[in-house]
Amino acid sequence: MAGPRDEIEALIALMSRLPGLGPRSARRAVLHMLTRREGLMAPLARAMGEVAAHARECSVCGNIGTAEICEICADPRRATGEICVVESVADLWAMERGQAFKGRYHVLGGTLSALDSIGPEELGIPKLIDRTGAEGVTEVILALNATIEGQTTAHYIAEALEAQEINVSTLAQGVPIGGELDYLDDGTIGAALRARRKF
Amino acid sequence: MAGPRDEIEALIALMSRLPGLGPRSARRAVLHMLTRREGLMAPLARAMGEVAAHARECSVCGNIGTAEICEICADPRRATGEICVVESVADLWAMERGQAFKGRYHVLGGTLSALDSIGPEELGIPKLIDRTGAEGVTEVILALNATIEGQTTAHYIAEALEAQEINVSTLAQGVPIGGELDYLDDGTIGAALRARRKF
Repeated sequence: MAGPRDEIEALIALMSRLPGLGPRSARRAVLHMLTRREGLMAPLARAMGEVAAHARECSVCGNIGTAEICEICADPRRATGEICVVESVADLWAMERGQAFKGRYHVLGGTLSALDSIGPEELGIPKLIDRTGAEGVTEVILALNATIEGQTTAHYIAEALEAQEINVSTLAQGVPIGGELDYLDDGTIGAALRARRKF
Repeated sequence: MAGPRDEIEALIALMSRLPGLGPRSARRAVLHMLTRREGLMAPLARAMGEVAAHARECSVCGNIGTAEICEICADPRRATGEICVVESVADLWAMERGQAFKGRYHVLGGTLSALDSIGPEELGIPKLIDRTGAEGVTEVILALNATIEGQTTAHYIAEALEAQEINVSTLAQGVPIGGELDYLDDGTIGAALRARRKF
């Protein structure tokens, strides 16, 4: 359709680029907003525009916030001497939701990949090694995804940190809380068995 | 979390009010946008703001566009003497995707409901009856949903139009194109059988 509908069609096309929304659900979301222009659509557009304008990567850890230094790096209570290395900001947020880690982070922004020419420089690994010295870090926790790429990157970082007197650890593998054995893959069951502990 | 993350959390809360997005998928969508601030987030915010500012209901049919009169009502080729009555703008768009109807529309914006005190006035039914006279309409097609509310509303409109010499029709019920009998509900199979036609 030509004419005035173009603006709306362009919005649907942009919305459908969001994860979890296809062309159909993007259309449905836009229609929903169109009938709530004052209550939802205008505030959402404003909030999104403001975040797009203000959001930035923390210059220390790579977390996304609205300041030069993110609130975690700016918080002196989080200078626990521990750095948790994660692949993405999504993983950092997931760790924070877990509320178990009290230290600081280092966001790699990906994993090592010869094919995509992503080397240690692109992931800020030299910067991580500088930080361990400068911030008096005693432990680096590798919270990378349990994929081949994640584990390859973890091994690389562990080796790079070998020269320094730092404990390098990784997340435990095992049965998830609430998980049913019947639905778990064989690899996870094997890992949980090997890492079994006294009851 | 307090501080600079609030803006991002507020955006996630607004996003999660869209249909098809829950709190988790809204978070994922916002994270996706945060890593594509120039390429996706800023253009999306702009497009959404523009549509929110310009979109309006067509004063004739209730379709949503960006002008006082929508493009369908403004197009003289669509003065076919047929008006298709739909519950929502979503249904109007669905009819347009079907590319079978060449006339104009009337969007009710809901169905009759004593509980929610939605009467004929709220649905613009008197306006529809005025239109049938003013636009020289010969046929009103009731394309309401096959729900109890939709069918009750359809009956009301059909009765209200009885005084005028207008053909009132409704969409055929039957087996959807590509539909498998085994997956159809019994009501649809019964309706399709009763409305069977010569092969």
